[in-house]
Amino acid sequence: MKSDLPELMRRRNLDALMISCPDGLAPVNTAFRYFIGSAHVTHGHILIIRRGHEADLDCVLAHTAMERDEAARSGLRLHNLSQYDMREIYRSVDGDRLEAQVELIRRLFGDLGVRGRVGFYGLDERGAAYLLLDALAKAGFVEVVVEYENDILSEARSTKDAAEVAHIRQACQLTEQVIGATREFLRSHRIRGETLIRPNGEPLTVGDVKAFIRREEASLGLEDAGCIFAIGRDAGVPHSVGTASDVIQLGRTIVFDIFPRLPSGYHADITRTWCLGYAPDEVWQAYSLVQEVHDHVEGMLDSRRPSWEYNELACDLFEARGHPTPRLTPGTTEGYVHSLGHGFGLAVHEAPSMRLKALTGHDAPLPAGSVITNEPGLYYPDKGWGVRLEDDYWLNSDGSVERLTTFDRALVIPLE
Amino acid sequence: MKSDLPELMRRRNLDALMISCPDGLAPVNTAFRYFIGSAHVTHGHILIIRRGHEADLDCVLAHTAMERDEAARSGLRLHNLSQYDMREIYRSVDGDRLEAQVELIRRLFGDLGVRGRVGFYGLDERGAAYLLLDALAKAGFVEVVVEYENDILSEARSTKDAAEVAHIRQACQLTEQVIGATREFLRSHRIRGETLIRPNGEPLTVGDVKAFIRREEASLGLEDAGCIFAIGRDAGVPHSVGTASDVIQLGRTIVFDIFPRLPSGYHADITRTWCLGYAPDEVWQAYSLVQEVHDHVEGMLDSRRPSWEYNELACDLFEARGHPTPRLTPGTTEGYVHSLGHGFGLAVHEAPSMRLKALTGHDAPLPAGSVITNEPGLYYPDKGWGVRLEDDYWLNSDGSVERLTTFDRALVIPLE
Repeated sequence: MKSDLPELMRRRNLDALMISCPDGLAPVNTAFRYFIGSAHVTHGHILIIRRGHEADLDCVLAHTAMERDEAARSGLRLHNLSQYDMREIYRSVDGDRLEAQVELIRRLFGDLGVRGRVGFYGLDERGAAYLLLDALAKAGFVEVVVEYENDILSEARSTKDAAEVAHIRQACQLTEQVIGATREFLRSHRIRGETLIRPNGEPLTVGDVKAFIRREEASLGLEDAGCIFAIGRDAGVPHSVGTASDVIQLGRTIVFDIFPRLPSGYHADITRTWCLGYAPDEVWQAYSLVQEVHDHVEGMLDSRRPSWEYNELACDLFEARGHPTPRLTPGTTEGYVHSLGHGFGLAVHEAPSMRLKALTGHDAPLPAGSVITNEPGLYYPDKGWGVRLEDDYWLNSDGSVERLTTFDRALVIPLE
Repeated sequence: MKSDLPELMRRRNLDALMISCPDGLAPVNTAFRYFIGSAHVTHGHILIIRRGHEADLDCVLAHTAMERDEAARSGLRLHNLSQYDMREIYRSVDGDRLEAQVELIRRLFGDLGVRGRVGFYGLDERGAAYLLLDALAKAGFVEVVVEYENDILSEARSTKDAAEVAHIRQACQLTEQVIGATREFLRSHRIRGETLIRPNGEPLTVGDVKAFIRREEASLGLEDAGCIFAIGRDAGVPHSVGTASDVIQLGRTIVFDIFPRLPSGYHADITRTWCLGYAPDEVWQAYSLVQEVHDHVEGMLDSRRPSWEYNELACDLFEARGHPTPRLTPGTTEGYVHSLGHGFGLAVHEAPSMRLKALTGHDAPLPAGSVITNEPGLYYPDKGWGVRLEDDYWLNSDGSVERLTTFDRALVIPLE
């Protein structure tokens, strides 16, 4: 969590972090959102984090004059970037935009007293990232430090403090309202044969349901991040988001996986599987097994157990009933085909994860403070179905586990 | 436009482009969206573009098995990444994740016959981008080419073909429906004193209006990208998105700048300024001048004129009436405080732009095929107001200019 950063910086011997990203990407630049929250600073911003006294962090948001109001909403110390005369800087480097950026950073670091070992974070275009960091390293006014995956911010973000969990808890509650409203929306339709029918007499489609979902999200103040609403064969392909023209029919599995975020950037990530009216026997059986695995994993959650134990257990249980798994059949597209769960927060997928032992490569546990999903599933696209059940949890520092999602798991939605 | 890519690749002596980004960022990775459209491929994808015969491009989308349905929606040639055994790859590099990624790319390039000079594009975390490109360069199986800004994709995207403009035209039409619905929503409220009142007797706030806007966008199938709905003093700060608790009152300027996108990724970008009931004299005068500048610029649009001429003209006109401008007063926060316009498409801001001569550094025109905004404004936050007027245009290759936005410019919204 954020309070770990001074210690994480000390361990990496980092004097400062610089976080920025191209114009307009701030809302999805999770490194930036981690510090600025829901402020809409989008252009020309640079965030500087330094170790302060003891466990303190000194965060300075350098922003353009045009964005001063939004910058102020961040609550951080501010520094006006518009004081640097970009025209003079361009002239001083013969119009070279890369050199101009290096010169701007040199002046900014000079004014803020940033020196020593500086880590660089945030999204950028690949080529621009490479050339800027290379040029900064050659300019030599600070020592450029870079990390590949599992960087300091990922490590900090892999555990959440109470304030972050409050956001995630709220995102989960609102998302469950969307799920409930969607179920009621489905139930409100007439039936003709095996098909749900809209008031205008046309069949209800996946596209219609998704439009309803987006309206519900907007009404509740959630930012849409897409969702999976996949029926029948599509439900058998875990990341198929569903086919807009597919008609909603009785007795077919619907995998509904929804992961919107609050304006603060924090997501929920919840999946329910539904069958309207009735469910075929083999779907019942598969969903019962998925629930059994889900319950086993939930009961095991513990911040001392190696993180691969959960997925190995899931494979044990699925294989015992004859389902293919990635452990025995890498690349399988039938049976249990993905990993068991993942951390989430400002990103829908972030550290830690519950992978197979062979893919984990260490015995570290899910750390205390992590927020994770538990989402076993079974998929048989050629038989026309798939099922998944996904709930969210916070592993408290006191060893207890808080389940963040409570929506009922009923497979069949009864219709009148 | 896309059809320029073979020639742009030839000029840069590039044999192939590789485009990818971290999991989950595909929807905002414009380099990727440029080729895959509205397909929801989000995890572990790699796009390879090669020069084919003559003016052809050979595009291959390498995707994981889990995403095969969404990958197929792209219409591109597919290559299954799940055929590479990541467990064996990890073992072969002693679990080093960076080396494993290099090895995956080596095998992929080998199987697809990618060799020679390869340009790397797409978003990534800064450090990861640097280390991956550095490791690929050292591995030496291709020559790594990187570009800083104005890269080959920016250059291609700075002009739009008819298919892209069809998307943008539709985005503009739907966005104008949202603007119209928002005006009607405002007009539907009762007035108490100088304040709009909701049916429940509470004052209408900026937050209420934004919630309405998000619902309207969702109903029309537009993806929200945030918007500016700023009243009074906030309207005087161009990038203030507005304060949710601000009450909607008569006679105060409202700057409403909205830029949602279609599921295909193409944005609109439109601004209107409104005063409810009446407008103060100085606001009338300022808005008239802004309209005058706007009309002048619109009349000048021509794909032969240096792109800086428009903004210089705007400064001429504003300065003649005594308003500060960035040309005379760099960093000013009063008067005309930003540049005149910018290209847009898959991003809200992209090439080309209409900057001041001193910031442009060349005499190139707005190219034929570009889609740009024209958005002069005047801002006096300390006086409690700001005004801006923004329309969108396509500069056709035949020399004509198509205006993409038609919403009326009336400043005052009459109330009953």
